Amino acid sequence: MTARQIADLVDGELIGSAGVDLVSAAPVRKALPDQLSFWQRGHANDQLPETRAGCVIVDERTQAPGITLILVHDPRRAFAKALRAIFPCEAIEWSAATSADISSSASLGPGVSVGAHAVIGAGAAVGEGTLVGPNAFIGPSAVVGNNCRLHPGSKVYGNARLGDRVVLHAGAVIGSQGFGLVFADDHYELFPQMGGVRIGDDVEVGANACVDRGTLGNTVVGSGSKLDNLVHIGHNCQIGSHVVMAAQVGLSGGVVVEDYAVLGGQAGIGERAQIGARAQLGGQTGLLPGKRLDAGGSYWGTPARPLREQLGRQARVGRLPRIFAEIRRLRARIGNLEDH
Amino acid sequence: MTARQIADLVDGELIGSAGVDLVSAAPVRKALPDQLSFWQRGHANDQLPETRAGCVIVDERTQAPGITLILVHDPRRAFAKALRAIFPCEAIEWSAATSADISSSASLGPGVSVGAHAVIGAGAAVGEGTLVGPNAFIGPSAVVGNNCRLHPGSKVYGNARLGDRVVLHAGAVIGSQGFGLVFADDHYELFPQMGGVRIGDDVEVGANACVDRGTLGNTVVGSGSKLDNLVHIGHNCQIGSHVVMAAQVGLSGGVVVEDYAVLGGQAGIGERAQIGARAQLGGQTGLLPGKRLDAGGSYWGTPARPLREQLGRQARVGRLPRIFAEIRRLRARIGNLEDH
Amino acid sequence: MTARQIADLVDGELIGSAGVDLVSAAPVRKALPDQLSFWQRGHANDQLPETRAGCVIVDERTQAPGITLILVHDPRRAFAKALRAIFPCEAIEWSAATSADISSSASLGPGVSVGAHAVIGAGAAVGEGTLVGPNAFIGPSAVVGNNCRLHPGSKVYGNARLGDRVVLHAGAVIGSQGFGLVFADDHYELFPQMGGVRIGDDVEVGANACVDRGTLGNTVVGSGSKLDNLVHIGHNCQIGSHVVMAAQVGLSGGVVVEDYAVLGGQAGIGERAQIGARAQLGGQTGLLPGKRLDAGGSYWGTPARPLREQLGRQARVGRLPRIFAEIRRLRARIGNLEDH
Repeated sequence: MTARQIADLVDGELIGSAGVDLVSAAPVRKALPDQLSFWQRGHANDQLPETRAGCVIVDERTQAPGITLILVHDPRRAFAKALRAIFPCEAIEWSAATSADISSSASLGPGVSVGAHAVIGAGAAVGEGTLVGPNAFIGPSAVVGNNCRLHPGSKVYGNARLGDRVVLHAGAVIGSQGFGLVFADDHYELFPQMGGVRIGDDVEVGANACVDRGTLGNTVVGSGSKLDNLVHIGHNCQIGSHVVMAAQVGLSGGVVVEDYAVLGGQAGIGERAQIGARAQLGGQTGLLPGKRLDAGGSYWGTPARPLREQLGRQARVGRLPRIFAEIRRLRARIGNLEDH
Repeated sequence: MTARQIADLVDGELIGSAGVDLVSAAPVRKALPDQLSFWQRGHANDQLPETRAGCVIVDERTQAPGITLILVHDPRRAFAKALRAIFPCEAIEWSAATSADISSSASLGPGVSVGAHAVIGAGAAVGEGTLVGPNAFIGPSAVVGNNCRLHPGSKVYGNARLGDRVVLHAGAVIGSQGFGLVFADDHYELFPQMGGVRIGDDVEVGANACVDRGTLGNTVVGSGSKLDNLVHIGHNCQIGSHVVMAAQVGLSGGVVVEDYAVLGGQAGIGERAQIGARAQLGGQTGLLPGKRLDAGGSYWGTPARPLREQLGRQARVGRLPRIFAEIRRLRARIGNLEDH
Repeated sequence: MTARQIADLVDGELIGSAGVDLVSAAPVRKALPDQLSFWQRGHANDQLPETRAGCVIVDERTQAPGITLILVHDPRRAFAKALRAIFPCEAIEWSAATSADISSSASLGPGVSVGAHAVIGAGAAVGEGTLVGPNAFIGPSAVVGNNCRLHPGSKVYGNARLGDRVVLHAGAVIGSQGFGLVFADDHYELFPQMGGVRIGDDVEVGANACVDRGTLGNTVVGSGSKLDNLVHIGHNCQIGSHVVMAAQVGLSGGVVVEDYAVLGGQAGIGERAQIGARAQLGGQTGLLPGKRLDAGGSYWGTPARPLREQLGRQARVGRLPRIFAEIRRLRARIGNLEDH
């Protein structure tokens, strides 16, 4: 695509050579004359670095004489859009295989591709255009929507229903048994886990992440939510739409996370805790069972506290050496007074 | 089953319609007239909510005119027992497959079912009634007991021996190589890992959890212990019976956990640390290498401290603003005294 | 092997019976007369315990009359070397299988062994002597070096290139899509992830660990680095050589870890943070986005601080009860002074 075509695509203002042909993309410091790049004002240095890129998408205040620029409001978003256009279909890494084990009673929509050694159980339904990777597993009666992508070794139990355009990365598990125990005199018995999982549209579940089935009702992940690698979602969690969880986040059973909340990596949430809409939790935050975080707030630490309060606590501990010294001085002054 | 039959099963006192027929179960707020439910006194509201459930299992002090009740000592446990009776066999999600790859020298007990594309190595022994899921792996010479359930994609290396009724959830790995390194001048060499894993009866290992083999001796998980999803057990850990570990707990090498200990989610235990019997660790607790926690205690925080002590420390940090103000006041009073 | 042969192998001084034959190895307290063991000065007890071992590798200062000893500088390293010699080839737990699904355009070096139900995609290259485990996946165009070992169910996407002698443990995922999101008005869109993964020689990746592909450039893991189970490496991380990460460590996108750094279990590293060479991070350390830790330092806590500073902070919080009491005493003394 030419710089002009990309500028039109992202609704940006072109400055420079409209005709330069861009065949791929690269970071701004490494890009070559036939590559597109982007740049946005950073932390330390507000200068667009020297670049050989054929064209750079930048924000509207940027100037760089001699470089072909496309000015936009949000360079990163525009660049992402351009990338999707330049490379419209990421190459599929697996293809239809005769070695898959597909139940005769499973229903596959048009354009479904099933990889080698994948397994699709009795009565399962797989929607149009969905790709089922090698060694993936779809249990009996599971429902997978249209245009989903189940990466190699991902697993969907029969209790699960997935919406459209859901992506399960390699090794992800949907519908595994929840961790419900009943202590009986001197040992634990399992609390039967009979519910399912309901996953909306446009959800991503990271590699080796796990979403447990509900005990009686369903575990729910709302449309547009994105879960990173190695995330754990306990039984009966109710996750809203457009929620983001970074890698290794863990939710105990029955947690409620409202729309647009963002959980930093390794955050851990206790049973039946609630996280309000658009709340933001820093990495490694620990929220105690049954607690609620207000919508829109920023939180950090274990136990989770409003970010400002948490920073205040840390700063106060940092002041303790001076406080201890001050107390010693006061004691000396009192001693002096007492001696007189 | 009728309410009368369930009352007899759980040894409870029936109040109301003995003959109501219960075909399934649901949470108390959602249950329909042909569904069983349970309710126990909760945190905020001690009133049994309005329900359409055909029958509710409750504790002995509960009254609810017009609702068919079964009074018991432990409603949750009784409900679990009733569920197991109403739904005696959870549907198996995989069935015997010709596409499995079973060594001719493997020994399979009666009633063993092996899912599609599973692999069972030479000399492996799989006990009576055990279900081996699709894409599961049992290494050469591994021993798996009776009535185990190996979920899709779970893996048992040849160095492992599993007792009876062991459940490995999807993607769990038993017997992977431990993380033993020897620094040699300018690089790491592996310390050979030659031991195995011994898993008792009635153990559960969660989805994508990992139990490493011992270095020379064995890694041991005692009977009745329950490990949730994404747990990591390092080489040579000695885990007692009826130990519970919530999701994402991690144990370094050589950790000892005694019977009935409970580890909250994301707790991390350093090398060769010891956790006494029935000790309880809060979520995200970090226990330093070589430390020991006393039996029966409750612990929290990093480094792990007795819960009461940990809460005291947190409370004291919370009092610092008032303390700082008090010091300012004292300083002023001293100044006044000095001025006279 | 005889004690003499082992002493020669590890370049140690033999004291005792040169001819004793050693057929296996065990911990010093459990070893039998035909077993080799090792012992090094420990934390509590500097006495070599009573042992029946046929031969014990010890450090140069150790004396133990009546026991055959091999004196060396580093007993653990010498023992590891001896083990590798006594058991030169750990038994391979899988063997070549006709049920593997190997693309006709894949290129396999001499001595490659592919396990049951493994999948090797079009154009992939697998080097000499490499073992591909059951249900493992190698994507189209992936490059795997010589003498690698891909354990059961491990996955290498087509964007990845692995050096020689790389070990992927069961369920490990190399080249999964990174977690790059663009917020677009009211939902998230994926930032296209088009880079790859480059893994050097002699790297280990633990069971169910994940290494994401780069966004535009590559995610890099340098030669000799060792990643334990359930580790997460985000997109575009640049990990040096001989880096060690214990289990459940998580790195966000764009993190730089220099050579010989050591990260304790469950440490979490924020986006674009940097860890200097040979830095050591304690377990559960949390490093904030964009921060840098100096080379060679020891760090702990969240937020990460120099170890000594972190310990000082903890000690000061521990002194607060005494400080509060002191303030009460000072207040009383001031009151007394004021009353006069």
